[in-house]
Amino acid sequence: MTDVAVAGVGMHPSGRFPHASLKDLARVSVLRALDDAGMGVKDIQAVYSSNAMAGLLQGQEQIRGQSVLREIGIERVPVVNVENACASGSSAFREAIIAVRAGVADTVLAVGFEKMFVDELNRSLNALETAADLDVVGGLGLQFTAVYALRLRKRLDDGSLTLQDLVDVAVKSHHNGSLNPYAQHRKPVTADQVLASRPIAEPLTLLMCSSMCDGSAAAIVTRADLPSRTGKPRILVRASAAASGFTATETPGPSTATGCARQAYEEAGIGPEDIDVAEVHDAMAPGELLYYEQLGFCEPGGAADLLRSGATAIDGKIAVNPSGGLSSRGHPVGATGLAQISELVWQLRGEAEGRQVTRPRMAMAQNSGGWLEGESAASNVHILERTDPWN
Amino acid sequence: MTDVAVAGVGMHPSGRFPHASLKDLARVSVLRALDDAGMGVKDIQAVYSSNAMAGLLQGQEQIRGQSVLREIGIERVPVVNVENACASGSSAFREAIIAVRAGVADTVLAVGFEKMFVDELNRSLNALETAADLDVVGGLGLQFTAVYALRLRKRLDDGSLTLQDLVDVAVKSHHNGSLNPYAQHRKPVTADQVLASRPIAEPLTLLMCSSMCDGSAAAIVTRADLPSRTGKPRILVRASAAASGFTATETPGPSTATGCARQAYEEAGIGPEDIDVAEVHDAMAPGELLYYEQLGFCEPGGAADLLRSGATAIDGKIAVNPSGGLSSRGHPVGATGLAQISELVWQLRGEAEGRQVTRPRMAMAQNSGGWLEGESAASNVHILERTDPWN
Repeated sequence: MTDVAVAGVGMHPSGRFPHASLKDLARVSVLRALDDAGMGVKDIQAVYSSNAMAGLLQGQEQIRGQSVLREIGIERVPVVNVENACASGSSAFREAIIAVRAGVADTVLAVGFEKMFVDELNRSLNALETAADLDVVGGLGLQFTAVYALRLRKRLDDGSLTLQDLVDVAVKSHHNGSLNPYAQHRKPVTADQVLASRPIAEPLTLLMCSSMCDGSAAAIVTRADLPSRTGKPRILVRASAAASGFTATETPGPSTATGCARQAYEEAGIGPEDIDVAEVHDAMAPGELLYYEQLGFCEPGGAADLLRSGATAIDGKIAVNPSGGLSSRGHPVGATGLAQISELVWQLRGEAEGRQVTRPRMAMAQNSGGWLEGESAASNVHILERTDPWN
Repeated sequence: MTDVAVAGVGMHPSGRFPHASLKDLARVSVLRALDDAGMGVKDIQAVYSSNAMAGLLQGQEQIRGQSVLREIGIERVPVVNVENACASGSSAFREAIIAVRAGVADTVLAVGFEKMFVDELNRSLNALETAADLDVVGGLGLQFTAVYALRLRKRLDDGSLTLQDLVDVAVKSHHNGSLNPYAQHRKPVTADQVLASRPIAEPLTLLMCSSMCDGSAAAIVTRADLPSRTGKPRILVRASAAASGFTATETPGPSTATGCARQAYEEAGIGPEDIDVAEVHDAMAPGELLYYEQLGFCEPGGAADLLRSGATAIDGKIAVNPSGGLSSRGHPVGATGLAQISELVWQLRGEAEGRQVTRPRMAMAQNSGGWLEGESAASNVHILERTDPWN
């Protein structure tokens, strides 16, 4: 199987951009990724585009990617539009990797984009609801926030997590986000502020939750044996794992993320102890704690101890969400998986100014999307490696 | 690169099915494809689902495939939702092939489904419009029908096609459709009936055009070196080519289909003279004539002669659209590309009862989708081969 490298990444900052169209957002991330890779539009041989809700939010279905790419001047090459709820971005990234592995293209672009701020907040909320099967949950108002709340409530009840842990991980996320120029929420917050913020779904408060967000992110993958166009450190894709439908309501049962992470570790031939930095899917900041266990960063039930030890801080042994994660960096749904990849590439290269993890070598991105009666509809785990030595 | 075979195909008939949900349609085609391959749900290792408009027509975005597959009992495996306008189905088929070629899965399902008959016809028409960039054509009412009409008008004006040719190819499509139990339009029509039917966009009349349609189709691809579970003839994928954005308004200029077909011939190491049967993208029946030239079945300008010679009839040298094509078999958008594959697999195996082409060995499917100011947004050409001798 052909080895695959990440040649370039790029992001549009996350936030509210009333004067930027979906195309404007995507264009910025693609042009930045091309520039980062030392490439031009003619170098791209295939494109996977990811978006979750433009059909409902902008009315544009069917050719979302093409309408964006034409404006950039990428044309004639195969374009496939990928949709997988909150895991859309990592699904596009994975398809790009598979295309290079299959030998159908040497250089492939994955680009994700989402514009959630529209004229009416209710339209965005209704569109978000389509990440679940409408025949099952349509009209129930059971948003993701409530699903996270139920999972966390259970852990508070069994005593394996405290409310203070939930608050502390949100403070950590906001701290990290405050250091990231691409983040939506860039103000550090105190524990008191988190606790005093508006209740959303008990035990979650406003400052624990990701919010509506516009944004875009892109990555370019290539055959690893192609010469680099830049002097930047080489970033290899060591694993690309995907799954759907593992039972995700039980912790530490075999969640989608757990199943995916096991596949990824096996593919890379490493274990969780080898990961130096991770971006995980914390649509609600305390979700990060559940992923510590599901990804094997600690034993089941050990999340609170791991957080309290400081090991997951930027200067810890295994830095988690140095970008601020979904809850602070932002969660522009179709772009999120690629925003994680962008952050990890910067971290592995030593380019994450102000929030740089110390000389990381191995990085993990975990992105989940959608749900079907308590099961995740899509989950992807990627492992990236810096192969050049740090000097 | 791993050789890929088509192990099984299945279809739900095309037409109007007010009592069948999108899930009902998809379930039928998937269960039939599994049965055809001699497989069960546990044999499927990954799924690519294709749909063009459920976000706008059924309100279900983000996890279209998962919501359908769970009901069938296919779970835990990676599911990617693919959207590419009228080429969605062949895009999902191509991704399934790429996944097997890359070695990430041995057995992959591609399933396409669409339900265009909804409460209000206008909703379907508006949804169809999203196959183009809404920022460019939104509200113009410039549907595909008009695009085909403009292309054909030009050919009538330069004298290389006559109105009678347009009528005759529609009569041929309806004749073939009348022989196909999966077809939407199953009544043969006369030339007089075609001419007398309601004008849609001059020179196109109603009986030349595809119509609103519900339907679903599925295909299962595997490593070609896996033993067959059935005694059916082996069908190999000899080429899978994709492109977007070639200028498609000029005929016989380098259209998307032309570019794609050239790639496919090169990949398969054959030429147009080797194709025995083809399913081409005749959303309007006379479009078939343009594809004769674009796919190399005749010289530029030679379409009328090829049709008049009878070579593209079911008993001709190169049978085109024996199923009735999009205009008669039906055009359930997200399923169409896989309906073409289903028909060709049946033809190559000798299972196309009543419309069987004589002992075909090599088959071509050509599926196009969307448009951007006169350019196709997505185009896929596949070549399939029957490797077993006919006896």
